[in-house]
Amino acid sequence: MSAPIAGPEIERLIQALARLPGLGPRSARRAALLLIKKKDALMRPLDEALREAIAKVTTCRICGNVDTIDPCTICRDERRDPKTLCVVEDVADLWALERAGAHKGPYHVLGGTLSALDGVRPEDLSIGALIKRAKSVQVEEVILATNATVDGQTTAHYIADALESAGVKTSRLAHGVPVGGELDYLDDGTLTAAMKARKPV
Amino acid sequence: MSAPIAGPEIERLIQALARLPGLGPRSARRAALLLIKKKDALMRPLDEALREAIAKVTTCRICGNVDTIDPCTICRDERRDPKTLCVVEDVADLWALERAGAHKGPYHVLGGTLSALDGVRPEDLSIGALIKRAKSVQVEEVILATNATVDGQTTAHYIADALESAGVKTSRLAHGVPVGGELDYLDDGTLTAAMKARKPV
Repeated sequence: MSAPIAGPEIERLIQALARLPGLGPRSARRAALLLIKKKDALMRPLDEALREAIAKVTTCRICGNVDTIDPCTICRDERRDPKTLCVVEDVADLWALERAGAHKGPYHVLGGTLSALDGVRPEDLSIGALIKRAKSVQVEEVILATNATVDGQTTAHYIADALESAGVKTSRLAHGVPVGGELDYLDDGTLTAAMKARKPV
Repeated sequence: MSAPIAGPEIERLIQALARLPGLGPRSARRAALLLIKKKDALMRPLDEALREAIAKVTTCRICGNVDTIDPCTICRDERRDPKTLCVVEDVADLWALERAGAHKGPYHVLGGTLSALDGVRPEDLSIGALIKRAKSVQVEEVILATNATVDGQTTAHYIADALESAGVKTSRLAHGVPVGGELDYLDDGTLTAAMKARKPV
């Protein structure tokens, strides 16, 4: 790029914004300009939210969720059923399941997936801690809710094997047609899986 | 949406991010999670950049550009040719022309366009200040670089009329085929304008 247009402070803000996912250099410039124009309505609230998050947000030592308390709100919640433990790759997946209200028990965030390509080994993920938690007398079933990708499924199989030898029951999310989905737009793998897992009406 | 998933602090950060242009609720959640995960590499630098911008960035009293000094770097730059004054709708347009190195003189930022629909009148824009600047003995030509939209062109015509009665020479950007553009993808208006304004090779 050419020389900075409007002083190093504005360039620095644009560059910090451009590192957010979903914002490229062009939209980062637009965002920076809007923030500067709406100093009180946008820029100050964002700055305050960031400062508060920096000061307060932490990672739950039990499940790996992010929250302002440790253990997190979900791990502390005694109304949750500790019998089923749901394993997810990432906090974003935990949030998605919580938004859907799809799981009523506690979670375990792996922090990624096994990947030969990226050199991610079992000891790089929170798998040891998961096996320790799963062996607790309270846990009756471990739901492996990793993504339906190659790495996600490999990780689920690895964990299922490890838990089987520890005598813990495991399950995984069903594959099939998404609710509201049109068959015409689905890939062959999903259609084959949905056909295989068909159920009587 | 359902109840907050991870405490009000994180929700507040997501909502502040979701107000940036180009980020919806979903990408704001992704951005918030990434910021939380990379506290030192991403969240602190963004917070510092914001705080510095809040403290230092201001609007130039002469041209309406944003900068950390007032008058701005461009208005102070004595190597710039004061004979041509370039009028733009917004600071983003000024940045675009500066990136291209397309204008070597000072600018004047209108702060929008006239719009009957949105109730934007001449006195809502920085038109009075422009006419005063344009009447200065130094200025020989005012380039009307408003967008090629209906509102942008209406605004350009309004300003051209006002400056004509003040005896100032005006010009506007050429319409035509964008450099690197394919005719097949261009709209009829652009093609007609390019044909009308054709030049000998």
